[in-house]
Amino acid sequence: MPKIAYFNGQYGPHHKAMVHIDDRGYQFADGIYEVCLVIGGRYWDMDGHLARMERSLSALRIRMPLGVASLQVVMNEVLRRNRLSDALVYIQVTRGVAPRNHPFPADEVPPALIITARRFDLDQSDAQAATGVRVITAPDIRWGRVDIKSISLLPNVLAKQAGVEAGAAEAWLVRNGKVTEGSSSNAWIVTDDGALVTHPKGHEILSGITRETALACARDLQIKVEERAFSVSEAQQAAEAFVTSATNLVTPVVQIDGVKVGDGAPGRVALRLREAYKARARRISGAQND
Amino acid sequence: MPKIAYFNGQYGPHHKAMVHIDDRGYQFADGIYEVCLVIGGRYWDMDGHLARMERSLSALRIRMPLGVASLQVVMNEVLRRNRLSDALVYIQVTRGVAPRNHPFPADEVPPALIITARRFDLDQSDAQAATGVRVITAPDIRWGRVDIKSISLLPNVLAKQAGVEAGAAEAWLVRNGKVTEGSSSNAWIVTDDGALVTHPKGHEILSGITRETALACARDLQIKVEERAFSVSEAQQAAEAFVTSATNLVTPVVQIDGVKVGDGAPGRVALRLREAYKARARRISGAQND
Repeated sequence: MPKIAYFNGQYGPHHKAMVHIDDRGYQFADGIYEVCLVIGGRYWDMDGHLARMERSLSALRIRMPLGVASLQVVMNEVLRRNRLSDALVYIQVTRGVAPRNHPFPADEVPPALIITARRFDLDQSDAQAATGVRVITAPDIRWGRVDIKSISLLPNVLAKQAGVEAGAAEAWLVRNGKVTEGSSSNAWIVTDDGALVTHPKGHEILSGITRETALACARDLQIKVEERAFSVSEAQQAAEAFVTSATNLVTPVVQIDGVKVGDGAPGRVALRLREAYKARARRISGAQND
Repeated sequence: MPKIAYFNGQYGPHHKAMVHIDDRGYQFADGIYEVCLVIGGRYWDMDGHLARMERSLSALRIRMPLGVASLQVVMNEVLRRNRLSDALVYIQVTRGVAPRNHPFPADEVPPALIITARRFDLDQSDAQAATGVRVITAPDIRWGRVDIKSISLLPNVLAKQAGVEAGAAEAWLVRNGKVTEGSSSNAWIVTDDGALVTHPKGHEILSGITRETALACARDLQIKVEERAFSVSEAQQAAEAFVTSATNLVTPVVQIDGVKVGDGAPGRVALRLREAYKARARRISGAQND
């Protein structure tokens, strides 16, 4: 069975999923995306992803391509046709197809929607978390509105590639001496007295959905949180470090630019938060779906 | 006759020109482009565009999809099949098609190339230059490597749209109080003593090919040039202002944020430079083609 994708308003084989070269996503990066985690057939943090999708589209003045209910129907159908129960669902919306010209096209041009899905291996993710990952740091040279989850990802690609070439799983981005976030995840540290520290929301970071849920988990666990920027050296000297994202959940960081964090093993607080995150996501997604 | 485009290694009707949704240009803005002007069947500033294309690709570590000679054959064939002699040729190269993942795909993945062409009306451009255009200013929130002519153009789109909504043809981008360039053109002013001023090259501006040729024309005409940043108020009080790009050639600016430049009519120096630019481009393209 070939993988199935949704594109140009229909379902079809993924390998035949084509869009027009005049799609503004292709020539102007004029669009947004979301990646949603599905475990056991249930979406984790679905409401958060859909709300952020609406915020990103609104910031760019792109219409929602479908109502939320219809969108969920299509997402479920893509999962069903691919026979996936543990998956990452990818949603991309662009300003549609129009002859190349910088300004927005006429209002009649409908936004373009693609939805794809691929298998997610939670056991493999747990194994990675048990080992922890290494990160490097790189200058944050992204544009000034990274709170919009746009497909304008070239600087993120370059930073991630630099990380991979250095044997790291992620690159933490540094602006004015402070870590903003990772190239595709939020960055956190744990202080010696057990408080979580992560960059505050604003135009300088993408407000991660997993970040928000992790904050809620920290509240549940009565862990203190400081939403403030931190430097690379503060991170290297921290008790623990970790990243959050839909694909990473909560994953401990054991090395930053070659310097061990703590004793170089995944931190206790990070692993506790990961378990709390999974339990919370299961509980909430179960309540929504039952 | 339908318009013809070159895509996926073949010529075909433009309306059927499709690329795969996993083309990294579509999901990561991981690619570059050039727009080349053709007048009377001859390329203007072709060498400059091809050299910059190679620089942009090199900066992103994307291979040239074709050798320069083959690329020119395809460009000419696209022009021929569209029966165009005055045209804009659009070239886009991306890192190719691979399952979605931030890091570069395997070396075997070939870059993707599209080439399209559309008619260019030089008389209409001359008419616009004779009237002059208005510009607004907007914050320059682009990433830190705009010297790479990447398709990561979302901030440019938003600035241009703001300009259009304000009745202007272009938005000049302002960083740290200084004009860097327009959203799709370089920005220039003429001082009271007749010197040209434009932002110096570097990571903060795209080094325009028309900008370079205009500098050469200024040398020919013995017009003094200062490559330095200028502020919005200096521009509003300047003797003249103008923009350069392959599609604008040299086009006078008569208003900045609603403030008339000079007497509000196209400037003498800008129009002289435009004529010099056209003469020079014709001479050089003629020498190359004859």
